[in-house]
Amino acid sequence: MKTYALIVQYDGTEYAGFQVQVGQRTVQGELEEALSRLGPNRIRVAGAGRTDAGVHSEGQTVSFKDDGLTVPIERLPYALNALLPPDIRVVKGWLAPEGFHARYSAVDKTYRYQIYEGEFPSVFHRRYAHWVREPMNWQAVEECAQLFVGKLDFAAFAASGSSVKTTVRNMLSVTVEAAPPLTLIRFTADGFLYKMVRNLVGVLLDVGQGRLSARDVLKIMESRDRRLASATAPAHGLVLERVGYS
Amino acid sequence: MKTYALIVQYDGTEYAGFQVQVGQRTVQGELEEALSRLGPNRIRVAGAGRTDAGVHSEGQTVSFKDDGLTVPIERLPYALNALLPPDIRVVKGWLAPEGFHARYSAVDKTYRYQIYEGEFPSVFHRRYAHWVREPMNWQAVEECAQLFVGKLDFAAFAASGSSVKTTVRNMLSVTVEAAPPLTLIRFTADGFLYKMVRNLVGVLLDVGQGRLSARDVLKIMESRDRRLASATAPAHGLVLERVGYS
Repeated sequence: MKTYALIVQYDGTEYAGFQVQVGQRTVQGELEEALSRLGPNRIRVAGAGRTDAGVHSEGQTVSFKDDGLTVPIERLPYALNALLPPDIRVVKGWLAPEGFHARYSAVDKTYRYQIYEGEFPSVFHRRYAHWVREPMNWQAVEECAQLFVGKLDFAAFAASGSSVKTTVRNMLSVTVEAAPPLTLIRFTADGFLYKMVRNLVGVLLDVGQGRLSARDVLKIMESRDRRLASATAPAHGLVLERVGYS
Repeated sequence: MKTYALIVQYDGTEYAGFQVQVGQRTVQGELEEALSRLGPNRIRVAGAGRTDAGVHSEGQTVSFKDDGLTVPIERLPYALNALLPPDIRVVKGWLAPEGFHARYSAVDKTYRYQIYEGEFPSVFHRRYAHWVREPMNWQAVEECAQLFVGKLDFAAFAASGSSVKTTVRNMLSVTVEAAPPLTLIRFTADGFLYKMVRNLVGVLLDVGQGRLSARDVLKIMESRDRRLASATAPAHGLVLERVGYS
């Protein structure tokens, strides 16, 4: 059977997240529906990241196996886009080596968090960036963000109730691209715990507005206690930017 | 009576334009509804530009006269924003000199047209930029755009059926800010004919894709015949950026 891979972009505003849920509009559901109209088989796809309701994607990667699709691979993005709603676009498609799996084959992922600073929210950025009214100290944020780089235990930033074997992840980089009024914070790691990026951003927002110091952040990390960390940053500022494969 | 002025930003996607129309959702209608909830009087506002359905604003200016509002002027943007939908924001309010009128007192206006180039449309820019698949020759566009600068007769770019005293307007500048995939074209003039910017952009799109030469554009201008110009560019790429007052 052929193994397919697709890069899928979406504006998550109108979706209950990537993953199929009964009775909800999801990105996976829309993709599977469109794929199933292009051949005889009911196709199930696997996504590299299970983005939550409201989270966007620039580089979500999905894979699936099938041998019934009649559309040649180079036409597949166009054929799917003709069936998909305009807030989901397939921007690349290729035949992957046997055994390729969008999630298990990924070696790293990059998430980007977008923050808009201003006295008033922006009507143009409101769907894609988190609005903060008070000016941010981006130098403090940048310094503090480096505390998250390395092979570290992110237990304090895992959503409560999530069950994983280990809460250790290897954060490869955290960069802050400040171009006010819009600032982008990028996190690249070998993997992320559930809601980890939004929890890290919650802490960085508190640092940027002087409510937490670098010393406080170290204490939170060391505590491994989610209850000590800041509020989770809103979903709509988050974008799955890129999934890396070896 | 006091004369008020407001700067109003909006995402025009969900509106039938600025101007009140019976049975339609309009920006003016939403503003007047919100204002009327802040005092005893039914308030009518005048906008500097009557933006069409789908056109956005970063600097629309409105004025009105009233003496019943109880909210102090410095709180008025906040009070209105609390009542307005999130795709309309009042970002500035001030008491203007007697006789000030958002449209008649304006000395110039700047409209910005946003173009997104790419093999696939962008899910993030789709509401605010016109997508072109074929790469654009921005140098040709920039050169041609200079033909529109000066006190000129723009009859060939006025929407058919519009009745105005004169079709001469003084175009102060046209600039092209190319930062692919997104390019911004700004037009500043003492006034614009109905659909003039979108008709000029239609011609520039044809120039950028090699379908028209500068010589053709000069001929179109000289013809004063709307039927010779290109198709009108779509509304959703257009933003009323700024209104200038002396």
